[in-house]
Amino acid sequence: MTTPELQNKAINTLRFLSADAVQKANSGHPGLPMGAAAMVFTIWTRHLRHSPRNPKWMGRDRFILSGGHGSALLYSLLHLSGYDLSLEQLQNFRQWGSLTPGHPEYGLTPGVEVTTGPLGQGFANGVGMAIAAAHLAAVFNKPGHELIDPFIYAIVTDGDLMEGVAAEAASLAGHLSLGKLIYLYDDNNISIDGSTDLAFTEDRAKRFEAYGWHIQRVDDGNDVDAIDSAIKAAKADPRPSLILCKTVIGFGSPNRQGTQKAHGEPLGDDELNAAKENLGWEKEPRFLIPEDVLAFYRQAVDRGRELEADWKMRREAYSRLFPDLGAEFNRRVLMNKLSADWEASLPTFPADVKGMATRAASGKVINAIAAKLPELIGGSADLAPSNNTKIEGVPAFQKESPAGRNFHFGVREHAMGSILNGMAVFGGVIPYGATFLVFADYMRAAIRLAALSHYPTIFIFTHDSVGLGEDGPTHQPVEHLTSLRLIPNLVVIRPADANETAQAWKVAISRRDGPTVLAFTRQNVPTLDVGHASGLSRGAYVLKDFGDPEIILMASGSEVSLALEAAQKLAEEGKGVRVVSFPSWELFEKQDEAYRESVLPKNIQKRLAVEAGSSLGWERYASSVIGIERFGASAPAKVIFEKLGFTVENVVAKAKAL
Amino acid sequence: MTTPELQNKAINTLRFLSADAVQKANSGHPGLPMGAAAMVFTIWTRHLRHSPRNPKWMGRDRFILSGGHGSALLYSLLHLSGYDLSLEQLQNFRQWGSLTPGHPEYGLTPGVEVTTGPLGQGFANGVGMAIAAAHLAAVFNKPGHELIDPFIYAIVTDGDLMEGVAAEAASLAGHLSLGKLIYLYDDNNISIDGSTDLAFTEDRAKRFEAYGWHIQRVDDGNDVDAIDSAIKAAKADPRPSLILCKTVIGFGSPNRQGTQKAHGEPLGDDELNAAKENLGWEKEPRFLIPEDVLAFYRQAVDRGRELEADWKMRREAYSRLFPDLGAEFNRRVLMNKLSADWEASLPTFPADVKGMATRAASGKVINAIAAKLPELIGGSADLAPSNNTKIEGVPAFQKESPAGRNFHFGVREHAMGSILNGMAVFGGVIPYGATFLVFADYMRAAIRLAALSHYPTIFIFTHDSVGLGEDGPTHQPVEHLTSLRLIPNLVVIRPADANETAQAWKVAISRRDGPTVLAFTRQNVPTLDVGHASGLSRGAYVLKDFGDPEIILMASGSEVSLALEAAQKLAEEGKGVRVVSFPSWELFEKQDEAYRESVLPKNIQKRLAVEAGSSLGWERYASSVIGIERFGASAPAKVIFEKLGFTVENVVAKAKAL
Repeated sequence: MTTPELQNKAINTLRFLSADAVQKANSGHPGLPMGAAAMVFTIWTRHLRHSPRNPKWMGRDRFILSGGHGSALLYSLLHLSGYDLSLEQLQNFRQWGSLTPGHPEYGLTPGVEVTTGPLGQGFANGVGMAIAAAHLAAVFNKPGHELIDPFIYAIVTDGDLMEGVAAEAASLAGHLSLGKLIYLYDDNNISIDGSTDLAFTEDRAKRFEAYGWHIQRVDDGNDVDAIDSAIKAAKADPRPSLILCKTVIGFGSPNRQGTQKAHGEPLGDDELNAAKENLGWEKEPRFLIPEDVLAFYRQAVDRGRELEADWKMRREAYSRLFPDLGAEFNRRVLMNKLSADWEASLPTFPADVKGMATRAASGKVINAIAAKLPELIGGSADLAPSNNTKIEGVPAFQKESPAGRNFHFGVREHAMGSILNGMAVFGGVIPYGATFLVFADYMRAAIRLAALSHYPTIFIFTHDSVGLGEDGPTHQPVEHLTSLRLIPNLVVIRPADANETAQAWKVAISRRDGPTVLAFTRQNVPTLDVGHASGLSRGAYVLKDFGDPEIILMASGSEVSLALEAAQKLAEEGKGVRVVSFPSWELFEKQDEAYRESVLPKNIQKRLAVEAGSSLGWERYASSVIGIERFGASAPAKVIFEKLGFTVENVVAKAKAL
Repeated sequence: MTTPELQNKAINTLRFLSADAVQKANSGHPGLPMGAAAMVFTIWTRHLRHSPRNPKWMGRDRFILSGGHGSALLYSLLHLSGYDLSLEQLQNFRQWGSLTPGHPEYGLTPGVEVTTGPLGQGFANGVGMAIAAAHLAAVFNKPGHELIDPFIYAIVTDGDLMEGVAAEAASLAGHLSLGKLIYLYDDNNISIDGSTDLAFTEDRAKRFEAYGWHIQRVDDGNDVDAIDSAIKAAKADPRPSLILCKTVIGFGSPNRQGTQKAHGEPLGDDELNAAKENLGWEKEPRFLIPEDVLAFYRQAVDRGRELEADWKMRREAYSRLFPDLGAEFNRRVLMNKLSADWEASLPTFPADVKGMATRAASGKVINAIAAKLPELIGGSADLAPSNNTKIEGVPAFQKESPAGRNFHFGVREHAMGSILNGMAVFGGVIPYGATFLVFADYMRAAIRLAALSHYPTIFIFTHDSVGLGEDGPTHQPVEHLTSLRLIPNLVVIRPADANETAQAWKVAISRRDGPTVLAFTRQNVPTLDVGHASGLSRGAYVLKDFGDPEIILMASGSEVSLALEAAQKLAEEGKGVRVVSFPSWELFEKQDEAYRESVLPKNIQKRLAVEAGSSLGWERYASSVIGIERFGASAPAKVIFEKLGFTVENVVAKAKAL
């Protein structure tokens, strides 16, 4: 048992470890750690089920510091609780190569559940985790055998609550009644510009009530027992919970607490010392951890082992009682392994001049593989009929049907992206989400975080060019393919036809260490001979040589069949032409030099790229590009393509001019 | 006076003009026009002050169709009301070159106030308009002489209300108590996936109450008198108003109304005929406009002339009473002209090796020109102290101080972008808004719409590279400069030093037909000799030749001084080197061939580009690039630059290797 004195010391240890780390780095944010220390203390020592020596233990609760700028607080907790994060790492805060970067990064630091810092993202990631948990619980749990039953705790800040992505996610969480969400709001009335009175005077509690959340208030954010009681009530309530805790930013710092000065810069030696004196703390040594405090926090290690052992026992009992489900749980949830034979369910499509839209092919692929891959779940930001994302014969994921696999995200692209990331990182599911390619702009921050954090999220973007036609320039992507290709560690695939679409899905599902963008057409494209499509996995491949090539035509997506037609014409005029299908720059760049040379030999320098989007970057592969350097236009697709030069005649002319 | 019969006919004319246009185009959205016809009828014939023959009349109210997919309804209104939009244009709906594209486009169609379609944008644009109006009213209006007093009406949809950008904007509108906003919510319970019960069950009225809005409900969205009463009450209330009108999507279509089938595809001839029969409308001819209906709507022309004449009289009286203000109103608001001598207030900075951050220089520039350009107003998404956006000596724009010029947008980047667009298009102000460059991702949809719509919005993005240091990869832009350069009609400028920063502001303020991005450093950069900086306006210029150039080093922003140092080293080793400062691709591309050749002569092919971001695209100008093809890292800036190759030694080595 802890005494009030020890508890107070333990909370102050969090405060000053964090402030000392910021001070040593001469960079960082002391305000949140000092203000929210009691909140995280209460969560971590009274509620959070976790196992510091096995941070990935599947039975754990999740903790998210949505205000990632308070990272020093999280690192302090991780070190004190016995995670593999040494005091030296804390002393190396924000330095090159440390495990303690400025904002928490998933995959880098043991115990960091998601990358946070860009505000609102952690909030929405938690909603995704709660969704994944609810789904897996519905699929696997049996009465008396609750293997998946986590609470998702988060510290959320004023900035999080102001961000639209959090608003979108909160509305969906209320709709779905995600009762496992327990968010503590660090309600300190301060943001960077100053008092929240400057821009944020809405009635937050009422807003969240309107979303269908359970609301509680804690008047003193340093009152551990009050926070504890609120968390207990939150656990018992079937709705998602927001606990508004009145805190003081930079608590303890006599000259800065309660002001924006405490937020984002080191206190400075004098003020840090004054704060220590103010709270009865030794000024030296820095990074002081009283022995009894360390022992107290480190109980988490043994407690974690016990929780884990208990869970393991329950899981074994479960496997005995439900051997098939147990094996599936093992495969999907614990090992994150695809079923051995899932690839056999990938469809092929007969060659067909009329063909089909790749979005339609994608719908067929999803439905062909869905039975073999029950972990494949997803939906659309209210464009399911257009995005072809529906899995037939299974229900929607709703409050009453959490085993459902079809998701209605609403017109909430940004939250969809962040929620998908939360689902992906939770594990046990392979989530996809869809909208029109042009609206990738709405969710770009989430896509970037997926790439940075190696989340295996699948983003489906249909209506991938001006070929969507009459909806016009507000809905026509032009710069989007290239702008997505710019994001490091994101694989962008734009398949040419139905057969490449199946191969693109194969790549996306197999890729478990980063996100994939699948770009699909609205309009029909011819289905080509399936024999070639497996080349997609190499990013670019020789689709057809007409004679001895002197010219290379390369294209992606809907422009591949245009390139083929043009090549045919050129061949009829006696030219040797190679057609390269080029669905993915990133996959091609991963190939060895020999392969790349075999597709694009140095001795063929007459190279024309054709893609209905920005030409920028195609210069890396081609000597000339037919692209689009303007916004689109509202007209039937055929007319637009003609006007913008995407015709056989123009491709032939440009190729001859090389 | 209108009779109930005429009124009913007039509303049905809107319904069927729209449905006929969609049918003829075989593409489009009949559901919103048929469901919301009575709402817009009430606004347009009973409340909206406008002048169809002079769509830009400054004294007008504003109308926004935030659900831009209902464009046929807006075009029908414009044609009927006497705007310069012929029936032929309506019959040419969604065709190449027509004035009636799939979604309304600002600048293309007379009477279209903003580009809408991407959901939530129109909602937030309206907030920007109301802000601009409130500001101009505070600056110019005198008791009894209210020149600027518009109401901002909008039709907002389920999709708009689900979008985070609208949530952000609504919260700010409530905070600022923008009483001129009157938004009618087309509450039809249907979105594309189906019933809003699938994903959108929050208590919308309560949410908006929490924001501080005035809420009313109209149970029957076809009840013109009820809508009329609600609008009257909204006008009288000091808060922004949301009127929830229960409507039926596709009203009148017997087999589709009230379902998602009415939303986004033509009814088909049979169903269209059935709908006409259902509402007592002649099936033929299509595009039927009864004469009395046309005469009724066309009264708007004379009424508009009268309103305009009255306003002109009041403006002239105002100018006599307040000649200085009248002249200023004329310059700023009516002519949108910059003051003749504003450029003289642009500061210069003495050469200085220590220098200053370009964000700091930007702050100095803003403050130097602010007095001469009272229309320059703006702020930050809660990063004012970091973005250096504050105009000293003037108050914040708040409910109590609408003449204030410093804006606190809160942590709401996306809404900030869309609000700035609304301010810019309203006129009379030159708005700027700021955040970190990495968070351009949050507001990308707004930036794109500014570019598409030619809004002269100024986006300030500081912390423009990994040089921001310890905050780490979540906060470090890498791909952002290039991804912004990809957007057509967007000018991106990354000045090298304080003097180029002043020139960048000159370009941004002078550019009145499209948006400008200004990218500034967090870290100090040397201030170079001011003599060169005017070259910025040409996008790239020769900063210095060391001897007879055989190598060109080109760079932008913080890398220019690095290139200079490297050139110095190379010159010491006997190499002839040219250093080109290259702050803007777009400005350079606008120069004639002769100028471009003078900066980058074809006979110098050894060219190295240096920029702390993605290298993609620099291939257009350089034969080799030192860029960044990975995410950044958390460490002091100096360390990061060293590790990633941004050192004099590496630039020298790479240059020699050319």
